[in-house]
Amino acid sequence: MQQIQWEKRFAQRVQGMKSSAIRELLKVTEQPEMISFAGGLPAPEVFPIERVAQATSRVLAERGEQALQYGATEGYRPLRELLAQRMSRGNLCLTVDNVLIVSGSQQALDLLGKIMIDLGDRIVVEAPTYMGALQAWNSYNARYITVPADEQGMQTAYLEEALQQDPKYIYVLPNFQNPTGVTLTEERRHTLVSLAQQYSVPIVEDDPYAELRFEGEHLPSLLMLEGERQEGAYQGNVIYLGTFSKIMAPGMRLGWVIAPSEVIGKLVQAKQGVDLHTASFTQMIAYELLKDGFLDEHVHVIRRVYQERRDAMLAAMEEHFPEEVKWTHPEGGMFLWVTLPEGSDATELLKQAVERNVVFVPGASFYPNGGGRNTLRLNYSHDKPERIREGIARLGRVLRRSFHSANLP
Amino acid sequence: MQQIQWEKRFAQRVQGMKSSAIRELLKVTEQPEMISFAGGLPAPEVFPIERVAQATSRVLAERGEQALQYGATEGYRPLRELLAQRMSRGNLCLTVDNVLIVSGSQQALDLLGKIMIDLGDRIVVEAPTYMGALQAWNSYNARYITVPADEQGMQTAYLEEALQQDPKYIYVLPNFQNPTGVTLTEERRHTLVSLAQQYSVPIVEDDPYAELRFEGEHLPSLLMLEGERQEGAYQGNVIYLGTFSKIMAPGMRLGWVIAPSEVIGKLVQAKQGVDLHTASFTQMIAYELLKDGFLDEHVHVIRRVYQERRDAMLAAMEEHFPEEVKWTHPEGGMFLWVTLPEGSDATELLKQAVERNVVFVPGASFYPNGGGRNTLRLNYSHDKPERIREGIARLGRVLRRSFHSANLP
Repeated sequence: MQQIQWEKRFAQRVQGMKSSAIRELLKVTEQPEMISFAGGLPAPEVFPIERVAQATSRVLAERGEQALQYGATEGYRPLRELLAQRMSRGNLCLTVDNVLIVSGSQQALDLLGKIMIDLGDRIVVEAPTYMGALQAWNSYNARYITVPADEQGMQTAYLEEALQQDPKYIYVLPNFQNPTGVTLTEERRHTLVSLAQQYSVPIVEDDPYAELRFEGEHLPSLLMLEGERQEGAYQGNVIYLGTFSKIMAPGMRLGWVIAPSEVIGKLVQAKQGVDLHTASFTQMIAYELLKDGFLDEHVHVIRRVYQERRDAMLAAMEEHFPEEVKWTHPEGGMFLWVTLPEGSDATELLKQAVERNVVFVPGASFYPNGGGRNTLRLNYSHDKPERIREGIARLGRVLRRSFHSANLP
Repeated sequence: MQQIQWEKRFAQRVQGMKSSAIRELLKVTEQPEMISFAGGLPAPEVFPIERVAQATSRVLAERGEQALQYGATEGYRPLRELLAQRMSRGNLCLTVDNVLIVSGSQQALDLLGKIMIDLGDRIVVEAPTYMGALQAWNSYNARYITVPADEQGMQTAYLEEALQQDPKYIYVLPNFQNPTGVTLTEERRHTLVSLAQQYSVPIVEDDPYAELRFEGEHLPSLLMLEGERQEGAYQGNVIYLGTFSKIMAPGMRLGWVIAPSEVIGKLVQAKQGVDLHTASFTQMIAYELLKDGFLDEHVHVIRRVYQERRDAMLAAMEEHFPEEVKWTHPEGGMFLWVTLPEGSDATELLKQAVERNVVFVPGASFYPNGGGRNTLRLNYSHDKPERIREGIARLGRVLRRSFHSANLP
């Protein structure tokens, strides 16, 4: 029987589409003896299981037919209204027309690619940046202009040069960035917003960890800074991405986009063809938990748990890591970033680490244009402190052995 | 303040991306006095609200952390295993590697576009065909080769000519097609599968209404016919799309794809960038309802209700429609198809119908290359029989008035 040569049937763009390193790693790490700092999983202990069960019962009892029926592509209207209201502040005046509900923030990234990226378009990103965004946009054949980041986030001193290359938009994660855990300073936020204005380039502000600050002071979002400059309905150039994955549960796949109504309209058209709409069922559950103030209370629990885990990781690193190794000190979020001495190769190190039953993500995956071979990302939100300590101790042994055998300083 | 010219920022492909006529109509039809045959909504009365509530409680109580956590892109493994097992029959031997869970069938259409369609690729479709598929693939700049359909489905006599134009794949809805309600005969199924084999062209079999047959005999799926020709793991050229929207609830956004593992692998890569994975929460609920046999029982209820509604619609049409008007007699599914005399314009008719508080979808929207101006689609699954009778009576008055004033035969 004649069989189809599938490889020849696939679209050209698929040839460059690789399986996410994070995803593949997650598969390897399902054995219980493996300690994984590779994933980006929230702590399952803080999932509000009981409250989700109550909210689900209420939704099904009171509006069951609506919850199980097709819904509007824009999303469940009361949830959109509530989000618009919550995110309006001062001069930033948002309405339901500024809000689209998406099936997780990742979908927003894909939809933005669909409505914005023509073949070969350039996007300004931090180096390093969120791998999932690169994965989404690679399928639209995007190219990237990287702006290096340091302990204060994107180095805006290099931004103007990037903007002169006519990029389609700037992509930035200002709070506790994935992968570095670093937060963009307030001064740089102002600079970023001003430069984007000046060059008329949109900013995509990806802000999944906004509410997970457990130390230091909350800084205004780029959306806020942008919104403050104007009167009336929001017409700024920031497209803001929020998510329920980190404050409620990722297994619901719920996020939202805030943008000028013109952009929302175009995203809605794209979403119609992509999945018609996000599940009415989960949207209505999220609405219940948000409107009664539960999620606002619940983030305090999450912050406390994550702070304890970050502290456990930092203390264990101090104890077990060789002194040549440097790392970031995040004030929130789920990740920290490790820099090995120049010339080190984190991917090589990973192979040794797997043998010792501990894994992480090599940093190079977060650099679209190369670099970062001597860096790696560690997640501290998922495991309990004692397991974090054990994992860091293992990793410390791998690092020491590696540096000795490689004759590094 | 300088404002962004968004229209100039959007990607070229978006310029051709129009809002779905169905979606826009659904908005107009929210007033209670409007009788809408335009949507494609299941009957809300048959949603298994109580059973969904029970399943949700069980899932959250027994595996709550898993239900709320990130999951594998491929989908919830027990659900994939169950689907593989259910759909294997005779020589058709499916494993978990042949199954991908998607966020509704619409997502499968988008993912297929992403992994298969290069700029200008041609796809063979029936004329008319499902509008949502066109919407998904237009965003990948697909072109279409149409094969006319009649009361027996796609006219396979014209298929060979289409296959000689080197299409990327054939898209077909063999059972109670959306929009016509027509079913592909067994003889034509064999011809279709043989020709696709001969020309080495994949078939995308979209089968949302498979279980909604309330009359006549079940016919083998193209997947089955294809699978029967081989031994061992499925390696055929049919990509099959199934959905929980019509047998459980569309508000969950759950569907699945059956395909050779090579195709599933590529779809998984694409899905990673698109939404990471489909909600664990809803997948686990669907698994509960499927594994205990509830959904198999439940389809009997749905069939009975839909048959009654189809009968009500057909009877009312006999009574109220002018004799020049013809229509299909579906043996299942949710739609029927009306053909007006040559020269009629269903879009013009719709304007008059709106004034009389009844709406439908003009058929031209289902023809990618033009045609069908004198056709329209009616949905009979959503409204109760008395409302269907009233709506058809209104539509009959519009038709009679329109034919008189237009001097049509």
